[in-house]
Amino acid sequence: MKVQTWEQVVARKRKAVMDSIPEDWIIPNHLLPPDTQDDVTTFPESSGWFTAEELSITNSEALELLPKLASGELKSETVTWAFCKRAAAAHQLTNCLSEACFDRGLETARQLDEHLAKTGKPVGPLHGLPISLKDNFHLKGLDATVGFVSHVDAPADQDATLAELLQTKAGAVFYVKTNVPTAMMMAETVNNVQGRTVNPLNRRLTPGGSSGGEAALIAPLGVGTDIGGSLRIPAACTGLFTLRPSFGRFPTLGCRSGMPGQEAVQSVNGPLARTLGDLEIYCRTVVDAEPWHDADPRCLPIPWRMPAPPLSGDNRKLKIAVMWDDGMALPTPPVTRALRQTVASLEAAGHEIVEWSSRDQAQGLDLLNRMFIADGGLAIREEIAKTGEPWFLPAMQAYAVSSELGTRDLWRLHAERQAYQKQHLDRWNAAGIDALLCPTTPYASVENGKFRHVGYTGVYNVLDQACISFPTGIRVDAALDKALDMCSYQPMSEVDKMIQSEYHAEAVHGMPINLQLIGRRLEEEKVVAMVKVVLDALT
Amino acid sequence: MKVQTWEQVVARKRKAVMDSIPEDWIIPNHLLPPDTQDDVTTFPESSGWFTAEELSITNSEALELLPKLASGELKSETVTWAFCKRAAAAHQLTNCLSEACFDRGLETARQLDEHLAKTGKPVGPLHGLPISLKDNFHLKGLDATVGFVSHVDAPADQDATLAELLQTKAGAVFYVKTNVPTAMMMAETVNNVQGRTVNPLNRRLTPGGSSGGEAALIAPLGVGTDIGGSLRIPAACTGLFTLRPSFGRFPTLGCRSGMPGQEAVQSVNGPLARTLGDLEIYCRTVVDAEPWHDADPRCLPIPWRMPAPPLSGDNRKLKIAVMWDDGMALPTPPVTRALRQTVASLEAAGHEIVEWSSRDQAQGLDLLNRMFIADGGLAIREEIAKTGEPWFLPAMQAYAVSSELGTRDLWRLHAERQAYQKQHLDRWNAAGIDALLCPTTPYASVENGKFRHVGYTGVYNVLDQACISFPTGIRVDAALDKALDMCSYQPMSEVDKMIQSEYHAEAVHGMPINLQLIGRRLEEEKVVAMVKVVLDALT
Repeated sequence: MKVQTWEQVVARKRKAVMDSIPEDWIIPNHLLPPDTQDDVTTFPESSGWFTAEELSITNSEALELLPKLASGELKSETVTWAFCKRAAAAHQLTNCLSEACFDRGLETARQLDEHLAKTGKPVGPLHGLPISLKDNFHLKGLDATVGFVSHVDAPADQDATLAELLQTKAGAVFYVKTNVPTAMMMAETVNNVQGRTVNPLNRRLTPGGSSGGEAALIAPLGVGTDIGGSLRIPAACTGLFTLRPSFGRFPTLGCRSGMPGQEAVQSVNGPLARTLGDLEIYCRTVVDAEPWHDADPRCLPIPWRMPAPPLSGDNRKLKIAVMWDDGMALPTPPVTRALRQTVASLEAAGHEIVEWSSRDQAQGLDLLNRMFIADGGLAIREEIAKTGEPWFLPAMQAYAVSSELGTRDLWRLHAERQAYQKQHLDRWNAAGIDALLCPTTPYASVENGKFRHVGYTGVYNVLDQACISFPTGIRVDAALDKALDMCSYQPMSEVDKMIQSEYHAEAVHGMPINLQLIGRRLEEEKVVAMVKVVLDALT
Repeated sequence: MKVQTWEQVVARKRKAVMDSIPEDWIIPNHLLPPDTQDDVTTFPESSGWFTAEELSITNSEALELLPKLASGELKSETVTWAFCKRAAAAHQLTNCLSEACFDRGLETARQLDEHLAKTGKPVGPLHGLPISLKDNFHLKGLDATVGFVSHVDAPADQDATLAELLQTKAGAVFYVKTNVPTAMMMAETVNNVQGRTVNPLNRRLTPGGSSGGEAALIAPLGVGTDIGGSLRIPAACTGLFTLRPSFGRFPTLGCRSGMPGQEAVQSVNGPLARTLGDLEIYCRTVVDAEPWHDADPRCLPIPWRMPAPPLSGDNRKLKIAVMWDDGMALPTPPVTRALRQTVASLEAAGHEIVEWSSRDQAQGLDLLNRMFIADGGLAIREEIAKTGEPWFLPAMQAYAVSSELGTRDLWRLHAERQAYQKQHLDRWNAAGIDALLCPTTPYASVENGKFRHVGYTGVYNVLDQACISFPTGIRVDAALDKALDMCSYQPMSEVDKMIQSEYHAEAVHGMPINLQLIGRRLEEEKVVAMVKVVLDALT
């Protein structure tokens, strides 16, 4: 057997992914936007390469497609074809895919169409709908490298539990898996296997990570994961909706982890969607399938509760705490403006706003960081060492050089986390709030290579609270969102100084701005309902 | 400061506990049963030392007392007085207490009586009822040594979360804490601080452990904990009911752990009761207090669901798997007889019984054992070393000599456990069963120092399933339950050989026999309902 260098393995893998795209779906050279074109979201409409039907389908919300798919008005094969072609284009424009399985998608679609024709009944609530999956979800016969060269050519022998549930009980169609950063442990989407995924709204910017391939694809519904912000950061960078559920609502078995068996802070998965309605139908579908019964023994037997647990007071008036900054890194100017405007809108709509001190944010982030490297980076280091692929530094530095904790010290860390969770719950109850509103990240988005801080999201992984990152409808305006004057600004920290210095309003002009709404643990339904209220106030 | 030997510390502590019993409640020498008297449960009635009212109160079920306490027909002070006196006696007969706080109990009772007189309303569903707590629950001002000499004279500065909930929201009265084995990690109740607790039904036998002090007290309601069988084993040794809930139903914060921060297998707490009805009112009360809201962020927002999740099929006919043995240690003859009789009764009542293979029991027990010593015993060893108290060997041997796992290996262990849980869930679903019926331990009870095997309980801690240990109403009959012929019997293992060789029918003659009914994770309500069905079939 010939030993290959990691570069050879990678070259072969990238070619294989490209080869899995049919020749007809390779964008002709004369239509391909130049590398200098930042915004490629205009491509489908402007290129003339898509039919009107393909555009109509792929621009639709899931909630628009589903009734038509369930009635047979639209064939799943037609819909799947359109999304496959659009995904092929998206990959060529943003490098967002890790795997394509268009054959599987079209075959599943045909079977679903047959089932509907024969029985008159859809298989489930997502009958015929293509859903993209983050790379770490196993699909039979496909790799799940999670960015490690060592995992190339290790195809899965069965579907992940969630994938199986979505396909067999809900009627979903799988057609692509999407790119992630190495081990899914960076906030930008880059690895040695597939390279870097860029933001389709502006290719000089990052779509975030680790579910950045999902976000860059912007299909109607995709599934990512989140252990420190990996759903919420990409949603924020691309203007999508996402829910980071508490652990136990959605099944997590049968996926590739970057740190297998790590449980001090649990990785969870959730949807990325263009609308809150699409997000909600996904959540309800998964929970209605009762995954605790047979799919995943760590799922909780909590049904999707409708109506959501009651909102406080009369007339759905909410009491929301606002955290303007986390004490470590001030949001960049557009994010602060969006937060101010949202707070003003909520107050104008009669909701009560109280201030939330950032006093325990640094402690939460510190706990998260110590949990991530509790094994001294060994799990990740072993994979890197297998092929000699280079490290992404400084982003992965901690995994390259840390010392492993013994179990006794890990137990101490657990005890610290338990105390932190209780302290935070007591604060929450003392404030008597329904939700906490704050930035998702300091950024709208940011230039590739410059994402510096995950504090706003990671603390809520430690606390396991239900969080939604949602687009406010507000966009960066270079005229309004000028950089701080760094001669007079006193930075909160070194990272804050870097973030504010690197901020260029023109670089992110026009980008959507997301915020984060945080509810109690396991109150996913209520957070969805509360985001509706916030959006109502904003419009 | 004078340095004391551990023996001096212990002598002082034991005296302090005895001194906390008022002189009036020290059993006069002429009434004290001789050491040779095995069964001391007859003492309250036969000694003449209790008034008729004290006997009537302390022999009552909680469900009999509660309406009277709520209406004011019985004063809490009267009831508490009676239980304090009875607990004082129990301690002198079985050494079951670790702490007595009769003053606190009587003071709480008087306040509750006043509240009722003033408002006409009880504080909560357990208004005025004395409840005993296992030693590890913190009560302000009392030690929680969990058997370590190092923890003597380290009084708690606040009540455990569960205790606070029970007192302030439910109206419970705390009056004693009960003895445990060192670190709560042995199946008999013995430690260097308070010494050994014996079984009141037969003082030559163990009440089990680690909640053995609770079981020996046999008050109407007590609270213990379970990480490998610590509720179920004592219940079995003394003929009580107990529920080992899945993690998250009842709050666990603010307790002393033998292994702080250990989370690979979660310790849980639950009630010990004389009747299933008393057990149920306790469970419902705790869950109805919504501990997830403010008490403990790790509690799950799952209400106490009544009626319980539906039983399978029509007419509450159950499909129950029976596991006759765990493949490691055959139950002693009385337990097998009780299991046979229960199965026959269930079949006669029309329930479906299927066989359950023990094929994955050893793997489950091995996982549990590896989790227990993942820190190489360091947490326990540090406490022992502080005072130089001697180890209990061989029971604690593993903690004395093991090697600590690094975090990476602990993660591997987590991954193994996740796979094990899924494999077991798949088996459960393939069998289509409502419950699993099996021994709680190989024993009815056993002579002090001879408890050898916790496999029947510990596997379900790894699986986090809801389990009840319940008295069948069947008792050991030396004439029927003869030892196996060890010349012809082929033991399953060394431990089996030891258990069968050591079994003496006469030694356990007359002891109650418990069995264990296991339901799905987080289906506590259904397990309660199913045990009712089993008891109906048995009567």
